[in-house]
Amino acid sequence: MFENADRTELSELGEFGLIEHLAQHFGTKNQHSIKGVGDDCAVIERSETTFGLISTEVFLEGVHFDLAYHPLKHLGYKLVSAVVSDVYAMNGKPEQIQIALGLSNRFGLEAIEELYAGIIIACDKYKVDLVGGDTSTSRSGLVVSMSVYGVVNKDLITYRTGAKPMDLLVVSGDLGGAYMGLQILEREKRVFMEVPNMQPDLEQYDYIVGRQLRAEARFDVIDILEEIGVKPTSMMDVSDGVASEIFHLAKVNQVGFDIFEDKLPIDPQTVETAISFDLNPSIVALNGGEDYELLMTIDQGDFEKIKNIPDLTIIGYVTEAALKNQLITKSGNTFDIKAQGWPISQK
Amino acid sequence: MFENADRTELSELGEFGLIEHLAQHFGTKNQHSIKGVGDDCAVIERSETTFGLISTEVFLEGVHFDLAYHPLKHLGYKLVSAVVSDVYAMNGKPEQIQIALGLSNRFGLEAIEELYAGIIIACDKYKVDLVGGDTSTSRSGLVVSMSVYGVVNKDLITYRTGAKPMDLLVVSGDLGGAYMGLQILEREKRVFMEVPNMQPDLEQYDYIVGRQLRAEARFDVIDILEEIGVKPTSMMDVSDGVASEIFHLAKVNQVGFDIFEDKLPIDPQTVETAISFDLNPSIVALNGGEDYELLMTIDQGDFEKIKNIPDLTIIGYVTEAALKNQLITKSGNTFDIKAQGWPISQK
Repeated sequence: MFENADRTELSELGEFGLIEHLAQHFGTKNQHSIKGVGDDCAVIERSETTFGLISTEVFLEGVHFDLAYHPLKHLGYKLVSAVVSDVYAMNGKPEQIQIALGLSNRFGLEAIEELYAGIIIACDKYKVDLVGGDTSTSRSGLVVSMSVYGVVNKDLITYRTGAKPMDLLVVSGDLGGAYMGLQILEREKRVFMEVPNMQPDLEQYDYIVGRQLRAEARFDVIDILEEIGVKPTSMMDVSDGVASEIFHLAKVNQVGFDIFEDKLPIDPQTVETAISFDLNPSIVALNGGEDYELLMTIDQGDFEKIKNIPDLTIIGYVTEAALKNQLITKSGNTFDIKAQGWPISQK
Repeated sequence: MFENADRTELSELGEFGLIEHLAQHFGTKNQHSIKGVGDDCAVIERSETTFGLISTEVFLEGVHFDLAYHPLKHLGYKLVSAVVSDVYAMNGKPEQIQIALGLSNRFGLEAIEELYAGIIIACDKYKVDLVGGDTSTSRSGLVVSMSVYGVVNKDLITYRTGAKPMDLLVVSGDLGGAYMGLQILEREKRVFMEVPNMQPDLEQYDYIVGRQLRAEARFDVIDILEEIGVKPTSMMDVSDGVASEIFHLAKVNQVGFDIFEDKLPIDPQTVETAISFDLNPSIVALNGGEDYELLMTIDQGDFEKIKNIPDLTIIGYVTEAALKNQLITKSGNTFDIKAQGWPISQK
């Protein structure tokens, strides 16, 4: 019936447009609903001193993962990482996850056991409990829905809002690895389809392939921030790429960002692989998704506390120029950073 | 890769077998995880006096719903009902839901608006907030993942466990309507595919078709129980059919059930339609799913409080005969009720 109705293509709106359009439906009428939309988690009242943090995501075979090269055990691990990362992005601690699976008849018990094995390793790593879930038939491959429930002290919660001019822009770990790992895996898949007996040699790409297949969520960064007594002024996780995430931060805070190309933390393997693919490593670092690092703004007054933390890199700072996000290149030129439109193939 | 491995078909295990098999992975190591698996919701510590209740389900086009006859607005409403029902089944109140959608390119903005319109009507009805969600591409139709977050006073929480011999078995509303509504819709779909210009006349089936397309969760029953001061000894919602649900209750409580055929609450429209399909209405009532009524056991001492509540029907009682579930027919015969194996076509 809906196929004949007046029709606005979703592509006209884009993903951001769609989410904004639908946001009008979201609400927090209930006294226990603190924040409904526009952050990594929704926030609910929990106790006098704590908020609850909740997030749900759905992952679809053929869209979010490709089982041609993604071992199920790694996939289970990665999807847990992806969802608990939403809680870390609020400066919170995940405590429980729930899983709902849709399984087509391609999957036997052994395959599901593999998926669960990875899920359980991740649960142990992040100290969360798997508390139930649902399994049903799927007619179209593997569907994994994950929900996470976390907790955060009310005085520690960190939203996407709160960044102010002169704050430092800081990112954990390194960037672009997961994206280049994906390029390697896609290339090997094409080779394998042409020459099925060829065994891929991925050893030289072990780091970036691992970043793609078995992503880690940065619980350790939350622990470090607690230890050194730093509460970021704003924070989110890097799932779609830094360029996309600063677009969000700039918008909700009505600020801009200056990012210094020579400060971008990029692993040598990511650099080499990007160059071999004729890609600019800095653009890969800014636009590559699925790194699950934490991107945060930190008050200048906390500079001394963070400057020697190896896993935190200051890559720029917040400016007053609302929505103006710039890259200052190694040669001193300045380019506008575009969130979605900036083609990753541009050198 | 997993297709070549040793393989145990899921059909060998059955849905119950699979859930039990996977349950070994579930745990409650975290001090805030109260109950992980085996009930309508997982239970988490929330405050000194309250527990949090959480549940996640995934609904797939072609498996859980058919858009050939399910208007998107009704579907949105029904899926919210299905998931909040899990919270009512714990004697709790839902407060927030989250949605993650997978959308194929068949869906324009207007279609999504229809789905959301139904979701919002349901949110208003159940007094829950829609707090965020996620939208992504799907290559295979509509995927809807829903999570619900509720709250319950610690002294009111009702688990599936707690039923004891001589308790009354009580169900809300009437049974089998959603199943017979589905039969009507499936029949009309077949007719329509053969004679596309034929307009179906569903008016005489309005009640049962409504039960299927626009299911209601029984928040009012929870309010009634609170008002009359009755806390069931055990409770769950009727999503798979009473026969299947008492199998669960019998197992976790190591009891049996005697159910009286002449007590089964069945709407006249369900009875007439079942007969026209050559089905036994009692078997439809016991095995038909998706009624989203509440099935509970109640202490004999509360009999006076519930006997005159129109929406609650005593259909039997709990026995000491572990796992022996029997139907006492109108003619006084006794039959074993089988959870999954009992064919609904048997008269």
